[in-house]
Amino acid sequence: MQNDKQAIRNLVETWLAAAGRGDVATMLDLLADDVLFMVPGQEPFGKKQFAAANHQMKDLKVQGNVEILEIEVLGDWAWMRNRLRVTMTPSQGKSVSHLGSVLTILRKNQSGDWVIYRDANLLMPESG
Amino acid sequence: MQNDKQAIRNLVETWLAAAGRGDVATMLDLLADDVLFMVPGQEPFGKKQFAAANHQMKDLKVQGNVEILEIEVLGDWAWMRNRLRVTMTPSQGKSVSHLGSVLTILRKNQSGDWVIYRDANLLMPESG
Repeated sequence: MQNDKQAIRNLVETWLAAAGRGDVATMLDLLADDVLFMVPGQEPFGKKQFAAANHQMKDLKVQGNVEILEIEVLGDWAWMRNRLRVTMTPSQGKSVSHLGSVLTILRKNQSGDWVIYRDANLLMPESG
Repeated sequence: MQNDKQAIRNLVETWLAAAGRGDVATMLDLLADDVLFMVPGQEPFGKKQFAAANHQMKDLKVQGNVEILEIEVLGDWAWMRNRLRVTMTPSQGKSVSHLGSVLTILRKNQSGDWVIYRDANLLMPESG
């Protein structure tokens, strides 16, 4: 179980690094094919829509800072609670930061790798 | 496992009925003592703060309509994804509806009852 927790921590690190360099392909590899993302004010969306949204954000510099607060491994399932701040900087213009909680359900796939299965992202624009 | 899913469905029904009649005590019984609620734009909060917020809402008529979309039981743990609409009507004034996804982690307590352990509530005011 310690190995699983470490593998999930590595996934988070890989995810943020990939987001930072706009490497959507690597991010997609960390998602279950039937992943669902939930964000405030939108219907849940899947892998295709995630990819499209991220390709549109190509010109943004994205920096994520995460605090992993809980990981619970339950066999081939796990859940994780994080506090995440994402700062997006357009090539010309001012940075915008979003801050909040993320509650994620993960699943071990047939290759034994952890992937994101359900992701509730409660980030909101940071005031101030 | 079918029994567990049914027990969790019953919990949701009991919860909404209690919310509808402002029965905070019954709602608190359905929460783990160390429950954490996550909502957009706030730090996670626990049972005490939940109770205080609900006591303040005493004079609102609250009606919740839920669509249970997924329940996954994993031994003494479970997760659930719902679509929820909550309509709040003040004694004098116009109704306000909130709509969105909820991702919940549940736990079976020592008495064998399911309780809410982590709850990510992405509801936002419904436009229109």
